[in-house]
Amino acid sequence: MNPAESASGQTLDSMLKKKMPALGIDLGGTKLSAAVVSDFKVISEPRTVPTPHGADNIVSAIVDLIKSFQNEHVLAGAGIATAGVVDPTTGNILGSTGNLPGWEGTPLKTLIESRTMLPIQVDNDANAAAYGDTLAMRMEDKECVIGVTLGTGIGTGIIMRGKVYRGAHLAAAEGGHMRISLGNQRFCTCGLFDCWEEYGSGRGLVATTKELLPGVTSAQSELANHVEFLTTRMITAAADNGDIIAQKGMNIWHQHLAAGIASLAHILDPECFIISGGLSSVVDFELLREMVIDRCMPRYAESVQILHSELGIYAGIIGAAHEVLTHISKPPAA
Amino acid sequence: MNPAESASGQTLDSMLKKKMPALGIDLGGTKLSAAVVSDFKVISEPRTVPTPHGADNIVSAIVDLIKSFQNEHVLAGAGIATAGVVDPTTGNILGSTGNLPGWEGTPLKTLIESRTMLPIQVDNDANAAAYGDTLAMRMEDKECVIGVTLGTGIGTGIIMRGKVYRGAHLAAAEGGHMRISLGNQRFCTCGLFDCWEEYGSGRGLVATTKELLPGVTSAQSELANHVEFLTTRMITAAADNGDIIAQKGMNIWHQHLAAGIASLAHILDPECFIISGGLSSVVDFELLREMVIDRCMPRYAESVQILHSELGIYAGIIGAAHEVLTHISKPPAA
Repeated sequence: MNPAESASGQTLDSMLKKKMPALGIDLGGTKLSAAVVSDFKVISEPRTVPTPHGADNIVSAIVDLIKSFQNEHVLAGAGIATAGVVDPTTGNILGSTGNLPGWEGTPLKTLIESRTMLPIQVDNDANAAAYGDTLAMRMEDKECVIGVTLGTGIGTGIIMRGKVYRGAHLAAAEGGHMRISLGNQRFCTCGLFDCWEEYGSGRGLVATTKELLPGVTSAQSELANHVEFLTTRMITAAADNGDIIAQKGMNIWHQHLAAGIASLAHILDPECFIISGGLSSVVDFELLREMVIDRCMPRYAESVQILHSELGIYAGIIGAAHEVLTHISKPPAA
Repeated sequence: MNPAESASGQTLDSMLKKKMPALGIDLGGTKLSAAVVSDFKVISEPRTVPTPHGADNIVSAIVDLIKSFQNEHVLAGAGIATAGVVDPTTGNILGSTGNLPGWEGTPLKTLIESRTMLPIQVDNDANAAAYGDTLAMRMEDKECVIGVTLGTGIGTGIIMRGKVYRGAHLAAAEGGHMRISLGNQRFCTCGLFDCWEEYGSGRGLVATTKELLPGVTSAQSELANHVEFLTTRMITAAADNGDIIAQKGMNIWHQHLAAGIASLAHILDPECFIISGGLSSVVDFELLREMVIDRCMPRYAESVQILHSELGIYAGIIGAAHEVLTHISKPPAA
């Protein structure tokens, strides 16, 4: 045995690195956030900058963020959660979404590693969040855990026995683009019709509530004056104030969420669903659970578990950081 | 090395058994079929009897079928593909469908093994078909293959790297019960609304075509006289005869099939879909592929493959037989 190796086969180097924190970075269409992460907790003040335009500028902004944290922290590496399709082995961006034009084709891991000399892991943001949530809840031995990130859209990540399930072409787990309705009723930003996220996301909540408003007067609902510029925040605030239309919108939104979750339950029979993302804070989990049970065959209804993420809005950052920590702590290949 | 072991660690016993055929048995709600299978081919005349009522009678009928084949064939074992939820390790029926009342709780493997002295493997019918199709097409090394069995209902099976994916509670891959529409429009035999199989199965084709018939005269469509007793066969025959209503029904049915396949593509990103079952013979695969591509984001549209099963109506029988052959040929646990 090499003296630098422990009895478990880990090198001293990898054990030391395992104790060090990593930076988690969450790259979205509008903002770029980062924080230092250790043991599934954010241990630094998070920093957020607006997402710049163009791939080169985004890469530079990420490098700047990393360097600003390196001034104060010794980092084992950095994990980047980004929108789009990612090859986690090469760290290349294989496909982008409308939110990040020109992002496709960026060799992100190579570019950032060469400019920071830090180990970098890149993953899709919903995958990273699901990975973080699964490990934080000690569910890495479960056959399947599905993470659902609720925000402007819906992201999903599928974790099987502690590993991100990626599919045959690295594009799996776009559950937000299941088709949950027929008849081309709502057009999705992805170019398809009737995707789950057009119903169950923040955009979906707004669209659903708008459909309730024609003919409603401002005496009946405070939302009637805001049809053109309705936001999720207006709706959730109005619902809290007892506004019937807003409450009805929230109720239908829960039904739409439940429809997608029930479909995923029948397809993948997961141990549990973990709901994260900004909009998860307005989910009535008891109501959602009842609605999912209503939409499941008895066998699924008995076992379905829907949990609220313990990582909150940091699920992506924490998951990405732990992806690089897991990668570093692997014993080197023989 | 034990002299009975080959260099690869297989025992002579297991190698001999691997060369022997197995019986494949397909248990459905109306009929019980069996045939001898070797190397993904049916090598005997298949036999079919009506499914008797009650678990005891079904078990006896299966035993009788096995014994009738044993008179003429030396069998390595028998694989049973059945409707319902199965624990493949114990061979117990964990959940049944309306088609086989009283089937739940039957310790099928134990009962049949004790009365035939043959190794028995039991699996859900759609899982068995997907397993057979995947292995027959030499796709056991692929990340994910999805089998879709089209008949009265829709069965799905998910094969990941050559193994049946079973989920956290052994109930995965009920893709036929994805919810593909909102608004409680069609009631499914499972007790839920708007399941994929109420649209994409034979029942779905009949329901869709019926919706087109109100106001249609018998001069306009030969189906107008048969609204009450419409069958898939009438519709496909009329479509072949150029009946516009029947052709419209078939077209919408393909759209409904495509909607479910596109959803599964976005969730699981499989290497390919393999379509089997009695109704697969009336699928226009070129049309279906176009419609799926229309409903997929570009990344999925580029890679989606939809193949017609090479095992035809025997996919379940062949898959079940190969499940027991695979099980037998495994080296014994150390």
